[in-house]
Amino acid sequence: METAVFLIQCRDKRGIVAKVSEFIFRYNGNIIHSDQHTTDPENGQFFMRVEFCFDPEFVPCRHLEDEFAILAKSFNAQWQIHYTARRLRMGILFSKQDHCLVDILYQWKSGELMVDIPFIISNHDSLHDCVDQYKIPFHYLPVSSETKKNQERELLSIVKESTDFLVLARYMQVLTAEFINDYNKPIINIHHSFLPSFKGANPYRQAYERGVKVIGATAHYITGELDEGPIIEQTVDRVTHKENADAMMRKGKKLEQISLTNAIRAHSEFRVLRFENKTIVFN
Amino acid sequence: METAVFLIQCRDKRGIVAKVSEFIFRYNGNIIHSDQHTTDPENGQFFMRVEFCFDPEFVPCRHLEDEFAILAKSFNAQWQIHYTARRLRMGILFSKQDHCLVDILYQWKSGELMVDIPFIISNHDSLHDCVDQYKIPFHYLPVSSETKKNQERELLSIVKESTDFLVLARYMQVLTAEFINDYNKPIINIHHSFLPSFKGANPYRQAYERGVKVIGATAHYITGELDEGPIIEQTVDRVTHKENADAMMRKGKKLEQISLTNAIRAHSEFRVLRFENKTIVFN
Amino acid sequence: METAVFLIQCRDKRGIVAKVSEFIFRYNGNIIHSDQHTTDPENGQFFMRVEFCFDPEFVPCRHLEDEFAILAKSFNAQWQIHYTARRLRMGILFSKQDHCLVDILYQWKSGELMVDIPFIISNHDSLHDCVDQYKIPFHYLPVSSETKKNQERELLSIVKESTDFLVLARYMQVLTAEFINDYNKPIINIHHSFLPSFKGANPYRQAYERGVKVIGATAHYITGELDEGPIIEQTVDRVTHKENADAMMRKGKKLEQISLTNAIRAHSEFRVLRFENKTIVFN
Amino acid sequence: METAVFLIQCRDKRGIVAKVSEFIFRYNGNIIHSDQHTTDPENGQFFMRVEFCFDPEFVPCRHLEDEFAILAKSFNAQWQIHYTARRLRMGILFSKQDHCLVDILYQWKSGELMVDIPFIISNHDSLHDCVDQYKIPFHYLPVSSETKKNQERELLSIVKESTDFLVLARYMQVLTAEFINDYNKPIINIHHSFLPSFKGANPYRQAYERGVKVIGATAHYITGELDEGPIIEQTVDRVTHKENADAMMRKGKKLEQISLTNAIRAHSEFRVLRFENKTIVFN
Repeated sequence: METAVFLIQCRDKRGIVAKVSEFIFRYNGNIIHSDQHTTDPENGQFFMRVEFCFDPEFVPCRHLEDEFAILAKSFNAQWQIHYTARRLRMGILFSKQDHCLVDILYQWKSGELMVDIPFIISNHDSLHDCVDQYKIPFHYLPVSSETKKNQERELLSIVKESTDFLVLARYMQVLTAEFINDYNKPIINIHHSFLPSFKGANPYRQAYERGVKVIGATAHYITGELDEGPIIEQTVDRVTHKENADAMMRKGKKLEQISLTNAIRAHSEFRVLRFENKTIVFN
Repeated sequence: METAVFLIQCRDKRGIVAKVSEFIFRYNGNIIHSDQHTTDPENGQFFMRVEFCFDPEFVPCRHLEDEFAILAKSFNAQWQIHYTARRLRMGILFSKQDHCLVDILYQWKSGELMVDIPFIISNHDSLHDCVDQYKIPFHYLPVSSETKKNQERELLSIVKESTDFLVLARYMQVLTAEFINDYNKPIINIHHSFLPSFKGANPYRQAYERGVKVIGATAHYITGELDEGPIIEQTVDRVTHKENADAMMRKGKKLEQISLTNAIRAHSEFRVLRFENKTIVFN
Repeated sequence: METAVFLIQCRDKRGIVAKVSEFIFRYNGNIIHSDQHTTDPENGQFFMRVEFCFDPEFVPCRHLEDEFAILAKSFNAQWQIHYTARRLRMGILFSKQDHCLVDILYQWKSGELMVDIPFIISNHDSLHDCVDQYKIPFHYLPVSSETKKNQERELLSIVKESTDFLVLARYMQVLTAEFINDYNKPIINIHHSFLPSFKGANPYRQAYERGVKVIGATAHYITGELDEGPIIEQTVDRVTHKENADAMMRKGKKLEQISLTNAIRAHSEFRVLRFENKTIVFN
Repeated sequence: METAVFLIQCRDKRGIVAKVSEFIFRYNGNIIHSDQHTTDPENGQFFMRVEFCFDPEFVPCRHLEDEFAILAKSFNAQWQIHYTARRLRMGILFSKQDHCLVDILYQWKSGELMVDIPFIISNHDSLHDCVDQYKIPFHYLPVSSETKKNQERELLSIVKESTDFLVLARYMQVLTAEFINDYNKPIINIHHSFLPSFKGANPYRQAYERGVKVIGATAHYITGELDEGPIIEQTVDRVTHKENADAMMRKGKKLEQISLTNAIRAHSEFRVLRFENKTIVFN
């Protein structure tokens, strides 16, 4: 038995749930979880995630996919299939601060993030004992304004074929639109503020200057526009006048860890659909 | 067009989602929301809520129900159907403290709780200006240890036929197992603690004595055992050493309001299933 | 015995706490709560709130104030004294939506907001049964772009002498810099977003369009710049893709109530100091 | 210049704040933070934390302490002085699960927990790569019901003189009243539930069985009675019917980390006073 997930989106239409579930039933599959969301009863957008198990000896994956393609075409849907046993390959980029990286690696090793990690890339070569122990290949790709183009080309050559998505675990370089376009797969970033507040540099300093009473962290997909991509997860905590920018930063690290690992978990369990500049996150 | 909700629960079995969605499709219905939960892939319990619109001219409700009964029998399911346009009738009981009542009535009047309120019952006759304005019939049913039996009999005669469920909005009388049994419909209670902590009387005092750093409120269905029924909603907030039992009570009132109105909303939108001593709350 | 609060702010200097507490002790006062905050050990800003009881027969208020003025001058402090028994007079303005108003009035009547409310003002004359019961004078001051100047002049003539601060409980008019300047006392506003995100009109719509996963409400003092004044309180809650702008609005109402009444409570208990564009809120 | 903290508790009495702050001023000290709490204006209990810097060349620590002892006696206070530069020595005990340990060590290495860690003790000798890198001595002290007495004796001989407090970072052995008594210094435990709910074994299983909608973790001081000591910190998060006991455990790990490191931070910065079975935590 194998477990798979269909992610489906299209204009809403009568009968899609019936057709999809009947399809699975026809191939002897059993639905484990099924979640569906329609933005609007009239003329809305339809989103569906269905997780099911099936016997690949009874119906080969290839056949399942071909048949589903025909069905999906009948209601003009975009769709993906993911097989739970085939883990996504996640490339990690970070700069100096390693709190997100450390949390990702610890959870990964504890079996709580179902991904493969082919390598870790940094534009700094600081020692990271806590990383070394995991025996994951490490690439040091320094970057300056002059070398940025070359560095991104090298980066692309490393990640393009070997990863299914990238995670920017406090990678303090803005990726160019060109890179994002060439990579053409999901890139998850953690921004250390409650977006859309405090885009750009030094968000804790900005938050402190504004005198907010709640701070946050935001995990989102990267698009060409800085800190503007679809939000996957946000986490917040209260602060008081006693907390200066440094204290907010310390408290915020925990929020960044939580937002980013939750986003990675959702993405790697095929729970996220993107539509316009938003996400549907099925729990 | 009419909107209806099926709530279904049974042992898990291959094909239920397909059959239910195919059933709706066959009668020209359109699924608006569908949510399904299985406790365990192997040998688990299956729960489903499906909200759909259909044309009662095309298929009369009675026919829909009869046909569905046959289908449901085929997989041995318990099921209910609710028509969104037919609002549940909610009887409210309270004693002296009116903060939950006030919040319910305000939200109800603002169109945010889709129920009918045939009357309000109290064992106290304090003036409640804020209630009077809503022009809802008020019954004063005083109770003492000697009169409890009679009072409950009178209560039952009022609520038995005229309500679909009861809400105890800080009703400080323990209903007898006999009453609960005779009424035989859902009763939602708000307990002013984070259950199972601090059952019984004076939970804020208990919380203060124990020195907790977080307080809560719990909305739950009533069973024969005090404060032990299935939990629908819990809401919490932080407290510090500066807050004594009175300050906790003040902060807790807001938590009680939120928990209770959320629970009423979930129940009246047919989002709650009960299984053993727990609830499945579909959002 | 009377209870009073000193609020003090100045450049930090050795010995201020000692001098203030010695001053109170000298006049037979007893400190109930004392809270002090310094922004920075070196060259910082000093803030202090001290609540104490004293016997006005032993030392008349006037004398206490004259003597404290001399002390405060010695360390160049700005200071205020408030006598707990003399409640602040709070003028309330609102437009159509009454959820904040209803919550304020209920809490006020329950003895949880220690203010006097001389009147309620609205630019709409919708019926508000829930308000009527409180028997608070109501002023209807309609406003259009042509009449704005006159309306503000009338508003000012009503509130200038009769109130100590104003609360904008969803008052959907932007007060002019001139009015704010002429009134020259604190004005608390509730903005229905997590500032600085989503300033201006329709913040829930903006939040929905941006696809945030957490929404909020912000109570802040008004300055000349729209939605830019010092933040007193922020409250947040999670949302999902299932919640559209209307659902966010419904959930947000509760957040607005909580933020605004907490801010009013803090202000009316003399717990808030302003410095630059921030607040120090002593709990 | 040195920084120190006074922690003071006694029956409330007029003039204590004045005397303490005047004392510091007399010795040329400057108060950085001062926080005071009185349980009750009449006949209450007084608690104070005052952090100040002073010049030990001007007044030697020994002299400061001797003089303060005389002052404290005059109002019958219990008191402690802590010098910020002298870090507390924290012994860590854990069993198999290392998520709390990993978080403590990471934060400690990042300079966010100002303690010394003389050693780590476990009753299991599983490999813990993430620990090894920190080069902290590790003691393996296996324990069975027969050897418990001896193991505790050995434990005591290791920790008694070399630590100022102990942290049970998921140490799954119940320490005997005798050990607690002989050690006679603070012991902080993390319990993986929202106490007083779900004491004892398998709290996530208990929480799942009870069907709660919010789970929590509690950091508390240990007393002779299991899971009954004074609570320092509690952290909570929402759960739904979709989360089984394992999912709750995974989510709970983060809560345990947050509660425990916050409690260690508060304790090691001398922010916690104990009174009866509660804590005063100055922030």
